[in-house]
Amino acid sequence: MCVRRCVITVGDLGEFGAVSRISGRLPQGATVLLGPGDDAAMVRAPDGRVVVSTDLLLEGRHFRRDWSSGYDVGRKAAAQNLADVAAMGAVPTSIVVGLGMPADLPVEWLDALADGFRDECAVVGASVVGGDIARGDLVVIGVTALGDLGGRAPVTRSGARPGQVVAVAGRLGYAAAGLALLESGWPPAHPPEPSRAPLSLPSSPLREAPLWEAVAAHRRPCPPYAAGPQGADLGASAMLDVSDGLLQDLGHIAAASGVRIELDPAAFVVGEPVAAAAERLGADPLDWVLSGGEDHALAAVFPAGVALPPPWQIVGDVVAGQGVHVRGREIGHVGWDHFA
Amino acid sequence: MCVRRCVITVGDLGEFGAVSRISGRLPQGATVLLGPGDDAAMVRAPDGRVVVSTDLLLEGRHFRRDWSSGYDVGRKAAAQNLADVAAMGAVPTSIVVGLGMPADLPVEWLDALADGFRDECAVVGASVVGGDIARGDLVVIGVTALGDLGGRAPVTRSGARPGQVVAVAGRLGYAAAGLALLESGWPPAHPPEPSRAPLSLPSSPLREAPLWEAVAAHRRPCPPYAAGPQGADLGASAMLDVSDGLLQDLGHIAAASGVRIELDPAAFVVGEPVAAAAERLGADPLDWVLSGGEDHALAAVFPAGVALPPPWQIVGDVVAGQGVHVRGREIGHVGWDHFA
Repeated sequence: MCVRRCVITVGDLGEFGAVSRISGRLPQGATVLLGPGDDAAMVRAPDGRVVVSTDLLLEGRHFRRDWSSGYDVGRKAAAQNLADVAAMGAVPTSIVVGLGMPADLPVEWLDALADGFRDECAVVGASVVGGDIARGDLVVIGVTALGDLGGRAPVTRSGARPGQVVAVAGRLGYAAAGLALLESGWPPAHPPEPSRAPLSLPSSPLREAPLWEAVAAHRRPCPPYAAGPQGADLGASAMLDVSDGLLQDLGHIAAASGVRIELDPAAFVVGEPVAAAAERLGADPLDWVLSGGEDHALAAVFPAGVALPPPWQIVGDVVAGQGVHVRGREIGHVGWDHFA
Repeated sequence: MCVRRCVITVGDLGEFGAVSRISGRLPQGATVLLGPGDDAAMVRAPDGRVVVSTDLLLEGRHFRRDWSSGYDVGRKAAAQNLADVAAMGAVPTSIVVGLGMPADLPVEWLDALADGFRDECAVVGASVVGGDIARGDLVVIGVTALGDLGGRAPVTRSGARPGQVVAVAGRLGYAAAGLALLESGWPPAHPPEPSRAPLSLPSSPLREAPLWEAVAAHRRPCPPYAAGPQGADLGASAMLDVSDGLLQDLGHIAAASGVRIELDPAAFVVGEPVAAAAERLGADPLDWVLSGGEDHALAAVFPAGVALPPPWQIVGDVVAGQGVHVRGREIGHVGWDHFA
């Protein structure tokens, strides 16, 4: 008997109760021919091809439940996969989700997670079409996203050629700045926003607003999805999403294309949250811009002389050679390796 | 310095070394337009639709490294997803794999896992087209399979109607019998087969061969993939793969279709490995046949009077009502619930 407040857990619901509860929160869009509830889902692939990408997120490694709410984690897990699909020049159509979780996980957390998946998918018109649930000691999330190229050629990593320009779309360094703040113990009390509403910033001294924005960016990335197909239509010959850090990820384009990439440090706009966090922590903001992951910006290579509309912004050149270089700057740490 | 034998670990390779090593072991088939190495892969979806299913496997929950080799786990993880696709009436085209693993995991285990994925996919002509690697304390495997219906309508769980017959294709009870043997401590020394060759049975008394076969079935299921599209072509109006136990899984068809399913216990052929394990452990073999999961047999409902070729075998009827019943038998445990 609950005298004060019952916390209903996933264990109370059971596997099929949990599946049913999640499914009930997930609307199905026009690309979905068969949604959750069967052995498999079925999704439209209008041009006879399907783009597919998968990522695995582990509690304690990719997120912490005391730093991010279930809703945050759902949005972030969906975002990083949807961004991979966009980085091919495709429009995401759907995701499927494999979920491992402890029996004592509050159902409220699970609900919020599902809502996070739903809302991030809604940004691009995609749907959560299926999944799988298992019991584990920690929360484990496997997301696979599908997408449609609408007849476009996929933009891979190997199409960069000397003479072209390098451009980025979206935030850089925000999530890294937010993570650094959380790791530094700022703010002193920083429970994740329990509600599923848009992140509201606590009333705080005005100068702290950019710091809260950095923390919010760590919790929920904001990838420039539309810039993916847009970049493909603008003639991008190589593209990827920045998940591990710009220098490291551009390194994949340089290696796959057999070219050298030279970045102009003065071409980067350092966001106010990045600058504010750097000032507070005594860090170099450009380190986060160049090496911070998890914002899921897009980086691409375009023909010289291209006129790029926003959000694209030219930050460097492709030349003969190899590797990624920042003019006038020694490069130390370049990005994230799970086993480094 | 290694005096006797170096065990190279995943941590030695690093994230990108491990990805590159795995990718090198994975041939790409004709349905693959773009394989591993980019933000996303691209696969043919010839009829403009794609079937998608996902599963999560957790070490200690779905497999034990002392009971199954990396190769076994790869085959099993692939098989259970490919079977889900087949159960829609589709032919699998590809899988993507998310892998969490500890840094001290021997590379040999990872190689064998990749080979297991490769070889199980080869059974149906599918390819491993992409994946993701992360560091975790235990091995975690998220698999997503895609498939092509070749113009067929998907066979869902809701199409059963009174007057139809219920049929199964593939093994039932084998994996459960094998698991029960392992749990009982049989055989006294039972390391998983380290090689990637077909499972060889140790030279042992002839009467033990069926027991080894049951253990092998636990380690590597053998789903009747071709029976999926075949069942669809034969007019199956509902179909699924038996992953949690026949009674429980048929319960999903009964519930989704609003019918009652009556099984004839005399219609089931009890495999020799199941019978032998039951005799050794003093168990009722039909319990495993009716309630054991993980063989990934297919179960389907067909119009009355249908002539079913092998491997399909009629085992019951669809009538008005609800639930799943076995004539002349009380039903206790029906199958697997991760949170029960």
